[in-house]
Amino acid sequence: MRRRILGIAVRLYRRFGHQKATVIDIAREISMSPANFYRFFGSKQAIKEAVVGKLFDEAILAAVGAAHSGASATHRLQAILQAIQRLHADRSVYDKRLHELVVTAMRENWTIVGPYTAQIETIVAEVIADGQGHGEFRYAEPPILARSVLAAMEAYTNPLLTSANRAEPTLGQMMEFCVGALRERRGSDDLYQVR
Amino acid sequence: MRRRILGIAVRLYRRFGHQKATVIDIAREISMSPANFYRFFGSKQAIKEAVVGKLFDEAILAAVGAAHSGASATHRLQAILQAIQRLHADRSVYDKRLHELVVTAMRENWTIVGPYTAQIETIVAEVIADGQGHGEFRYAEPPILARSVLAAMEAYTNPLLTSANRAEPTLGQMMEFCVGALRERRGSDDLYQVR
Repeated sequence: MRRRILGIAVRLYRRFGHQKATVIDIAREISMSPANFYRFFGSKQAIKEAVVGKLFDEAILAAVGAAHSGASATHRLQAILQAIQRLHADRSVYDKRLHELVVTAMRENWTIVGPYTAQIETIVAEVIADGQGHGEFRYAEPPILARSVLAAMEAYTNPLLTSANRAEPTLGQMMEFCVGALRERRGSDDLYQVR
Repeated sequence: MRRRILGIAVRLYRRFGHQKATVIDIAREISMSPANFYRFFGSKQAIKEAVVGKLFDEAILAAVGAAHSGASATHRLQAILQAIQRLHADRSVYDKRLHELVVTAMRENWTIVGPYTAQIETIVAEVIADGQGHGEFRYAEPPILARSVLAAMEAYTNPLLTSANRAEPTLGQMMEFCVGALRERRGSDDLYQVR
């Protein structure tokens, strides 16, 4: 029943937007009293968070798919970031109202945002660790490298920023830059000193 | 006279905010008729842009200072980004109303934003070129590397984002990551292929 309600909420939010579609609208579609509805989702905020969670799950699924594509770690890393970027970019064009809901969740830092970010970090860290195992990347704590790559690529993957539509650097150029940062460096670390 | 008006506008915007302080307020402070005022700045938007330009000049001056500090290119690069970040972060705390004006200019992409960004890019590109000349950084087009570094560091230097107050990666960690990307890589580029 929760899943059925969720499906209807997505449909109504997509059509009318999350501000216009009320709990009563959702309950009516499923011939349910509002009182009964609240047994499944305690508040309008709860159903909204559940919808955003469902949309985040799509991004996680796309990222996991890209992470297991069998290509080199470098390629898989790029595939993950491209998949997330495409999902948000497509939604911002073809599904404006749902995109707006995700943007609101990010801007107001809803409780589901933290776990979503953590999951994406884990997926990226695993690919980086795998690349280290194959000598593709230099060694440093994979979670720190993952967070750095994600911070560097934020303009392309954060729904708050993806609509900004920047021309340069492209996702590909930026990815190449990050791969450079992950690769083994020549020479020692003394260049980081005052000359 | 333009400079005097500008100084008063900064003072009033700082105290009352750019939405409350009117052209009439500014003209009155300098005992000038509004008609006369408009001979120096054609509109309220023109004076606002001039004030933001003055604030951007402070960032450029700080960046130029850091760029000529005589340390290694790596260090100067870090100093530039730190100087810009500190300026915005301090202003967002101690000068909230002026910070809000800069944020508005960035969000609405006022005409002065483009030249400011271009100037910062030039300063960073020059330090990178210098680092290449000293064998500190690998060779690639300095403007492309500069744009990549600035994109990677955007969370720390864009006034729209600096208030987000992220804990990790720190500016230092992120800077180290970028320096890794700028350094000479070991091995050939064939790691970028499918395994």
